[in-house]
Amino acid sequence: MSTDVRELRREARGLLPPEVYDFIAGGSGQERTLRANARAWRQVSLAPRVLRDVSRVDTRVMINGGWLATPIAVAATAFHHLVHPDAELASAAGAARAGALYVLSTRSSRRIEDVASVLTPAGASWWFQAYVMRDRQLTAGLVRRAAATGAAAVVLTADTPVLAHRRRDRGADLISEGDFLVNLGPLDDISAAEQAADVTRADITWLAEISGGLPVIVKGVLRPDDALACARHGAAGVIVSNHGGRQLDGAIPTARALPGIVAALSPVDGCEVYVDGGLRTGEDVLAALALGARAAFIGRPVLWALACGGADGVAGLLTSLTGGLSHAMALAGAARVPDLAGTAWPPDRAAWTSRPGGHTVEV
Amino acid sequence: MSTDVRELRREARGLLPPEVYDFIAGGSGQERTLRANARAWRQVSLAPRVLRDVSRVDTRVMINGGWLATPIAVAATAFHHLVHPDAELASAAGAARAGALYVLSTRSSRRIEDVASVLTPAGASWWFQAYVMRDRQLTAGLVRRAAATGAAAVVLTADTPVLAHRRRDRGADLISEGDFLVNLGPLDDISAAEQAADVTRADITWLAEISGGLPVIVKGVLRPDDALACARHGAAGVIVSNHGGRQLDGAIPTARALPGIVAALSPVDGCEVYVDGGLRTGEDVLAALALGARAAFIGRPVLWALACGGADGVAGLLTSLTGGLSHAMALAGAARVPDLAGTAWPPDRAAWTSRPGGHTVEV
Amino acid sequence: MSTDVRELRREARGLLPPEVYDFIAGGSGQERTLRANARAWRQVSLAPRVLRDVSRVDTRVMINGGWLATPIAVAATAFHHLVHPDAELASAAGAARAGALYVLSTRSSRRIEDVASVLTPAGASWWFQAYVMRDRQLTAGLVRRAAATGAAAVVLTADTPVLAHRRRDRGADLISEGDFLVNLGPLDDISAAEQAADVTRADITWLAEISGGLPVIVKGVLRPDDALACARHGAAGVIVSNHGGRQLDGAIPTARALPGIVAALSPVDGCEVYVDGGLRTGEDVLAALALGARAAFIGRPVLWALACGGADGVAGLLTSLTGGLSHAMALAGAARVPDLAGTAWPPDRAAWTSRPGGHTVEV
Amino acid sequence: MSTDVRELRREARGLLPPEVYDFIAGGSGQERTLRANARAWRQVSLAPRVLRDVSRVDTRVMINGGWLATPIAVAATAFHHLVHPDAELASAAGAARAGALYVLSTRSSRRIEDVASVLTPAGASWWFQAYVMRDRQLTAGLVRRAAATGAAAVVLTADTPVLAHRRRDRGADLISEGDFLVNLGPLDDISAAEQAADVTRADITWLAEISGGLPVIVKGVLRPDDALACARHGAAGVIVSNHGGRQLDGAIPTARALPGIVAALSPVDGCEVYVDGGLRTGEDVLAALALGARAAFIGRPVLWALACGGADGVAGLLTSLTGGLSHAMALAGAARVPDLAGTAWPPDRAAWTSRPGGHTVEV
Repeated sequence: MSTDVRELRREARGLLPPEVYDFIAGGSGQERTLRANARAWRQVSLAPRVLRDVSRVDTRVMINGGWLATPIAVAATAFHHLVHPDAELASAAGAARAGALYVLSTRSSRRIEDVASVLTPAGASWWFQAYVMRDRQLTAGLVRRAAATGAAAVVLTADTPVLAHRRRDRGADLISEGDFLVNLGPLDDISAAEQAADVTRADITWLAEISGGLPVIVKGVLRPDDALACARHGAAGVIVSNHGGRQLDGAIPTARALPGIVAALSPVDGCEVYVDGGLRTGEDVLAALALGARAAFIGRPVLWALACGGADGVAGLLTSLTGGLSHAMALAGAARVPDLAGTAWPPDRAAWTSRPGGHTVEV
Repeated sequence: MSTDVRELRREARGLLPPEVYDFIAGGSGQERTLRANARAWRQVSLAPRVLRDVSRVDTRVMINGGWLATPIAVAATAFHHLVHPDAELASAAGAARAGALYVLSTRSSRRIEDVASVLTPAGASWWFQAYVMRDRQLTAGLVRRAAATGAAAVVLTADTPVLAHRRRDRGADLISEGDFLVNLGPLDDISAAEQAADVTRADITWLAEISGGLPVIVKGVLRPDDALACARHGAAGVIVSNHGGRQLDGAIPTARALPGIVAALSPVDGCEVYVDGGLRTGEDVLAALALGARAAFIGRPVLWALACGGADGVAGLLTSLTGGLSHAMALAGAARVPDLAGTAWPPDRAAWTSRPGGHTVEV
Repeated sequence: MSTDVRELRREARGLLPPEVYDFIAGGSGQERTLRANARAWRQVSLAPRVLRDVSRVDTRVMINGGWLATPIAVAATAFHHLVHPDAELASAAGAARAGALYVLSTRSSRRIEDVASVLTPAGASWWFQAYVMRDRQLTAGLVRRAAATGAAAVVLTADTPVLAHRRRDRGADLISEGDFLVNLGPLDDISAAEQAADVTRADITWLAEISGGLPVIVKGVLRPDDALACARHGAAGVIVSNHGGRQLDGAIPTARALPGIVAALSPVDGCEVYVDGGLRTGEDVLAALALGARAAFIGRPVLWALACGGADGVAGLLTSLTGGLSHAMALAGAARVPDLAGTAWPPDRAAWTSRPGGHTVEV
Repeated sequence: MSTDVRELRREARGLLPPEVYDFIAGGSGQERTLRANARAWRQVSLAPRVLRDVSRVDTRVMINGGWLATPIAVAATAFHHLVHPDAELASAAGAARAGALYVLSTRSSRRIEDVASVLTPAGASWWFQAYVMRDRQLTAGLVRRAAATGAAAVVLTADTPVLAHRRRDRGADLISEGDFLVNLGPLDDISAAEQAADVTRADITWLAEISGGLPVIVKGVLRPDDALACARHGAAGVIVSNHGGRQLDGAIPTARALPGIVAALSPVDGCEVYVDGGLRTGEDVLAALALGARAAFIGRPVLWALACGGADGVAGLLTSLTGGLSHAMALAGAARVPDLAGTAWPPDRAAWTSRPGGHTVEV
């Protein structure tokens, strides 16, 4: 099994039913944002430093007060049973083995408690990604169960007040009612589990309360003003995300959104910035970190790796990406993650500028 | 029948004689502006807001003092009989059913009174698009008839002092003299009905007078200075337009012209900004509104829908586009149209800029 | 015979021996500048004005103190016998018939006096393009003959201190020694007629003197500082040119060079700015004039027209381009050439900018 | 044998085993930087001067206090035996014949003394490129031998703390242990010869000392701050380089990095700026010099020429490139290399800017 993301995807495509592949690979609308996400990382310009001692490269990062072996984390994605019989049990085991943070989706194919039993006893760090449902008590129940079984944080999904139309998504044929109800059990009215369209900043506080004080991370932020507002409402972090190009088509790629949000939150204590969307190589992750992200979340590639190799596949992918990052850090003259600051500038920014009286680095 | 614009076009192309398809689909010169129009909307960057209550999305807009169910409107296009036997009677009925503003062309294939009888009794809002003809009394006659039968405004076509050369246009073979004279009746000298090349700002006042005080909207404005001049001469609105890429080839796409005109007119009371040209999806319309347009006019797609499904086709298209807009608004965190302000920036503008001492949003 | 430049070229390609076609069509090096020239005009953004009286469009321009019917002029090109047996006699007759300024090349295939006899008696305006040769007396002789037979100005070719390598140029096989000596007669040493590499600004004065006071136009200027220096040394005009992409490969396209030179010379009296390179349509010429050129010189297309139709072909092409310009002026709301000012901005400039407190047009 | 670089490459590709061709032609990662290097030179805009006396063009440059016939130099590349049986003996002879500076790689296929015996007695200028190895005494030994045999400077390779992954590199199969040990002789532990990951600015001083005071040039600098730091630590020059796209993939192309570094070092005495990466024509070299480089190093093309024609091939290539540069200088109006200043601007910079009150050249 390869650990190169493009090869993994090709391999997974051969293994999976076409409708499952399309469900995962597709985006919304004309897939503008889907394409733009990956392209934007490749358009980040890197300006490596030289003559630094990089004989010991350390990829560790502190996230939410705890150290992790790698800034590469597993993004929440739904319904892992579609690609592997062991579903989230396997992906979680793979993440734990690689020392990577794992985010468990509300729409997992295995019960929270079962996935937690793979993670928590292994000392692995994991977060629970909450969709706020029309019946908020359903969400509250899940969050309490996640907190009780060891989740270190709650992720509030902010970019899904409604589901976007996805051309390649034939989900209705793929996902049964039972799949939706794995964590919820039977419901009188299935529509109670649909996503709420009235989620607001107040829900940050609400999730913190019902989780018994867990940090709340807001996922789906693309604007500096929204990021600041989240911080002011108590968010412990924001994930710069456009839902992998699966929600508003035309939304800016995350590599372009990231720098403004980092700048906006830099004077604010206690609200960290993470990013996802289109990251495929160690160099992409390096770019994300250099632009100020504290962690880079990987979505689809984890599913390809899960499809191809189960827990081993996921562990292999995460380890390989971390290795690629470590290698790229050495080449960029950065022995530790914070040393990456200033070694990249965003896709829509020009290069070094010489100004009368000096030179400046526009980053 | 599809409601996706690209599929509608494909379907219509199969149904229509090639010379009719080309007459409609084509542009002037090398079709630079034709291509640039659609591309420019796709290049608008969207920056959706999150954590807003969008459980009730309202697409209503106030145009010229009246509320409309949707900001998506039917642009004036000529000779609907070329694509459907019921011609403007069908397109007007479709617009009325969808609650969309309808602009009736001077060059309609049905008499003003006949089209008005579909619209006015139904409470539908419609405007009359006036070409100023060499014999101004011909224009005056049409405008008076439109005013008498319920037109809510007069649209002064400003970008057609002469007709551009259109490679794909074999109009001479398509349009008979009778087609031209549907509204005018027989003329001693047909050249009296040709467009006047000496239309000036003074004609804004003239049209207001002969129409008995109807608001006058100027169509074809691409410059802030022209927009300001129109406002100063009493225009109630301007339509940012390059005639769908059918007049000066090389003229800037409307998505690029729009922001400067919005900025120029923002301190001016009572002159609204609308836009047309290349808008094909709900996301495109959202971009137009976010950049400051109050309504988005749709031209060719209405003709494709008319060709494919008559009044039902037009109603279906407009309803579907409005649905797409509503959906996109929810995804952008905008419950009402004014909430879209600041969620887009134009194709030729860079992204968020971080400046020393703060962050700014360049929109 | 078509008057569309692209079709003319295709037609001429069919008529001419391949080595003649390549000699004319080709550029230097990797043909970067050749390609960039035409592309840059297409990238100029046009911002037409509306509601101007354009019932009488006037393409006349004053060049060097005299009125011309059209700002479209015939650029100096060499060896017209390669494409038509009547050579410059035919191209000059065509230009005269169209009322267009004609520039006669030092390397004409017909004697100066013979071409002048087609132009001067017809009241046509023409300039003589001088290559400064190693034996300056050879150049002086030609310039005196041109002045004596009615040339209105001398063009100093400034961008050819050496000849660039042109991949597609098999000139050595095409051009005989006799072709080179049409105007010079037999020489003791043919190298005396090679271009001098030591031409300097002092030659502006020298040419003015030997021509008996004719205005001197410098051709091949791409920089504001050089344009200013030419003006200070007495040049009556500069032609912004990169020799049609036939000299330094990588030189900026003329559409990009033009605005800076216009700005530099705008406070200077008596030094006009013209442009050539890649202009192919009326819209391209409109762009050149809108960016501040006083005339647009056409090179290769004149040769295609000459190949296809002799004098009639050349007259037809120039008349057609002028018609296209006139039409485009009407569409841009410009009844006279000076009205075009401010209706275009260069390919490397962004669109309208809104600034706090107002809007600006960046041109 | 051609002297056009593209044809040389094609020819060499036909001659060499595919794995050797790929080893040389390939880059790291997705080869983004490899592609970007060459493209960036082609995107430099040139603004030639006119009316300068260029009857005598002089390509000489002073490098490190000595005059060279040409600013085109041979970059250090490894293992010349892979492409020609005479290996570095041939490439050095070719460089000497062309009057070009030669940089000898630590990883040469011939002993330092043997290559030096081709260069030093011929009066050719050459530098020794040092990889700092884990056992620094190994490096010291080589540097002392190079100094003893006539090297004029030591090049410290700064961008190789670890080797990047190169897709097309099957080096392990190509290079034997003996190839690595040509200059070192047998080692107890081969890993002592691996590149050190702890090279720092202090090694600039160290190399100067062990070489007996030779100038130290740092290769692989892409940032103004690093360039300044090198200068402060005593470097006599920096080579702006991304290792030909073979180290950090995504690193900016050298044409974009160069201007900022030139600006940073311009107030600093005694630290020169050179560049390599993707230079393929005389116009590319002209661009590099115009942007402020004092010399342009050529890597892969020298190997293609060596493969195709041995010493003659290398001499022919360098002579031809110098001829192309000389020709381009004449066309740019520059009789001497310093006259090129201001005739180019970088790929990510806009053209001339006109500002209120004057015109400026942004270079």
